[in-house]
Amino acid sequence: MANPFVKQYLMTAGPTPIPPAVSEAMAQPVLYHRAPAFIEVYARCLERLKTVFQTENDVLCFAASGSGAMESAVANLARPGEPALVASCGKFGERWVELCEAYGAEVAHLDAGWGNRVEPGELERRLAESGAKVVFTTLSETSTGVVNDVQALTQVAHDAGALIAVDAVSGLGAVPIPQDEWQVDVVVAGSQKALMCPPGLAFAGVGQAALDHAAAGPGHRYYFDWRRTVEGQRKDPPDSPFTPAVTLFVGLDVALRMIAEEGLDEVFDRHRILGRAARAAVRGLELDLFGPEDENANVVTAIKLPEGIDGAAVPKTMRDRFGVTIAGGQGRLKGKIARIAHCGYFSAFDITTTFAAFEMALREAGHDVELGAGVGAAQAVFLEAGVPVAAPV
Amino acid sequence: MANPFVKQYLMTAGPTPIPPAVSEAMAQPVLYHRAPAFIEVYARCLERLKTVFQTENDVLCFAASGSGAMESAVANLARPGEPALVASCGKFGERWVELCEAYGAEVAHLDAGWGNRVEPGELERRLAESGAKVVFTTLSETSTGVVNDVQALTQVAHDAGALIAVDAVSGLGAVPIPQDEWQVDVVVAGSQKALMCPPGLAFAGVGQAALDHAAAGPGHRYYFDWRRTVEGQRKDPPDSPFTPAVTLFVGLDVALRMIAEEGLDEVFDRHRILGRAARAAVRGLELDLFGPEDENANVVTAIKLPEGIDGAAVPKTMRDRFGVTIAGGQGRLKGKIARIAHCGYFSAFDITTTFAAFEMALREAGHDVELGAGVGAAQAVFLEAGVPVAAPV
Repeated sequence: MANPFVKQYLMTAGPTPIPPAVSEAMAQPVLYHRAPAFIEVYARCLERLKTVFQTENDVLCFAASGSGAMESAVANLARPGEPALVASCGKFGERWVELCEAYGAEVAHLDAGWGNRVEPGELERRLAESGAKVVFTTLSETSTGVVNDVQALTQVAHDAGALIAVDAVSGLGAVPIPQDEWQVDVVVAGSQKALMCPPGLAFAGVGQAALDHAAAGPGHRYYFDWRRTVEGQRKDPPDSPFTPAVTLFVGLDVALRMIAEEGLDEVFDRHRILGRAARAAVRGLELDLFGPEDENANVVTAIKLPEGIDGAAVPKTMRDRFGVTIAGGQGRLKGKIARIAHCGYFSAFDITTTFAAFEMALREAGHDVELGAGVGAAQAVFLEAGVPVAAPV
Repeated sequence: MANPFVKQYLMTAGPTPIPPAVSEAMAQPVLYHRAPAFIEVYARCLERLKTVFQTENDVLCFAASGSGAMESAVANLARPGEPALVASCGKFGERWVELCEAYGAEVAHLDAGWGNRVEPGELERRLAESGAKVVFTTLSETSTGVVNDVQALTQVAHDAGALIAVDAVSGLGAVPIPQDEWQVDVVVAGSQKALMCPPGLAFAGVGQAALDHAAAGPGHRYYFDWRRTVEGQRKDPPDSPFTPAVTLFVGLDVALRMIAEEGLDEVFDRHRILGRAARAAVRGLELDLFGPEDENANVVTAIKLPEGIDGAAVPKTMRDRFGVTIAGGQGRLKGKIARIAHCGYFSAFDITTTFAAFEMALREAGHDVELGAGVGAAQAVFLEAGVPVAAPV
């Protein structure tokens, strides 16, 4: 497949690179899900997930893509014929709209526009207008790199007597979303981003108010029904209502241990430095960010590609010639932006590698770029922050 | 964890053992789901799944437990307030009842009883009585080892103008269910049984009549909506509507190649010989099968444990002292039966190992068993069938 002289580098915001220790654990023989050896892993994951969600709530686990956990929020909280407010600013926010429509809710859509943040004041206005009692929004919008102010949005929702469910699939573990401190009712996440595992596990941290609301409107859900999974996970020992993806849990157990060993605050610091370095590299290349300059936007850095070149060729050249896989733009942004991830198992030299390849691909696409200018700007950030800023091994 | 002098043997009907080649493939660095290297794997899996389902239909893939694919069948086929017929004979059949109730269908439940087969004549009577236009049933009922005559049940359903959806989670790839030849409308399966992969992928082979019926009743589904996944998988190149569990697909690709290399008929033959040997071992131990003597029941062999011993102690001793994990009875059968699996990556000496440990555990539980009597009976079957009957390497 790959040219043996070109190493492969995965720099997308999901799937993200897997630490070798996680891969090694997953290569061990499969465990029976009711055997003590697995139950131990499972119970430990349930506890450690609470630490990452910064919550005392149950963190419900599903064998699913991250969208499955989003669906669980809609299936348990939205009601046919009743208003639901979606506050979106990109592709994944719009998925909330599709989900709510599929479940028959009357959707009030606050569309902040791709590349913008959702404004709390606007949410307040739309909540009053619609009378919605549940809000669906996004922490880190992967399609644009924008990170919303979930604390403020939660406050606004609660002031209006509404619950809030937040898609933190790409954000959880990269940027802070302390669920209990901010009183976020529902936080959904996936295994394949900052949790450093392959895709296939989806999570929902669910508070009591959300569980109560769900219990008041049963039906039209089974696999994603929170009650069923809560009951199983609260058993002693905990028991999944459906065959769990045992291999992914074995990997998750190792990844969560690594996060615990690095320290959650240190993990956030690392992402902050990685994000800062990426933004410095963009400036060093005299290019523009797509979206606002934001000290919290530390999951994905979206870069406006220079006009007059074939934008789609840049990620393609990076991947096919240099072995560095980044993401281009999705939907309306196709060919217009490049998205460089730094979410999960990423270190300083992943950023320099990515920008080195990015510069080379820009040059090949005919853009007059000074080779090393972006890399150098990133290096300066890393030195200033004090190396080592390596990812845990 | 495990005593280093005791090797571990996984002899349950899911999760099942994983071939080393599958584990090795999954330990490779993660692929981006839109990268050519993954799309190649994905497209090949979609094609090879058709071979195992023996169908030209789309085989829809979900990141989920097998129950997720079952839910997809109910979410797409059942209608609130309309009758749905569930023909069950054990725990997993009863899951269809719970699912149909969750989706608001009027459930007509043909309960054949645990350990019995569903009788086609009885299905015919209940279909006429209920007027149901969709039937949910089970190929291999993992809780009892019973394998239903899906060909006959399909014929009866179609004669009554009803669609039929079959839970083949533990059966597909172990016992024949040629979807197109038998015209089974929907066949659902999972990755962790005869497909020799870890749990986390669920499949639904869906025929045109079922797709048409689903299209006529949209709503109340998103993640498991067939239309969305059909549209993605039919693109060129195919594209999953949600981030696919890339690592599991990489493993599945290897497992499906192994099945292709062994040959599907040879895979069925191997399971036939394994099942026959297991039943011979039971007779050799002068014990009784739970359920009918059946040449097709080649997924799980359920054995009535002798009276007067602590039944629950047998699987426990096998696992804790001998490192051999089998399943005991579920629900009402707890402590009453032992279930030995031979579904997936199983070879002749997995059966002799399991029965050797079973005999030793029976002796330890106080049952007067002739050591080697079960093993010997199995050996005779293997010799008569003509060794080698090894699983593919």
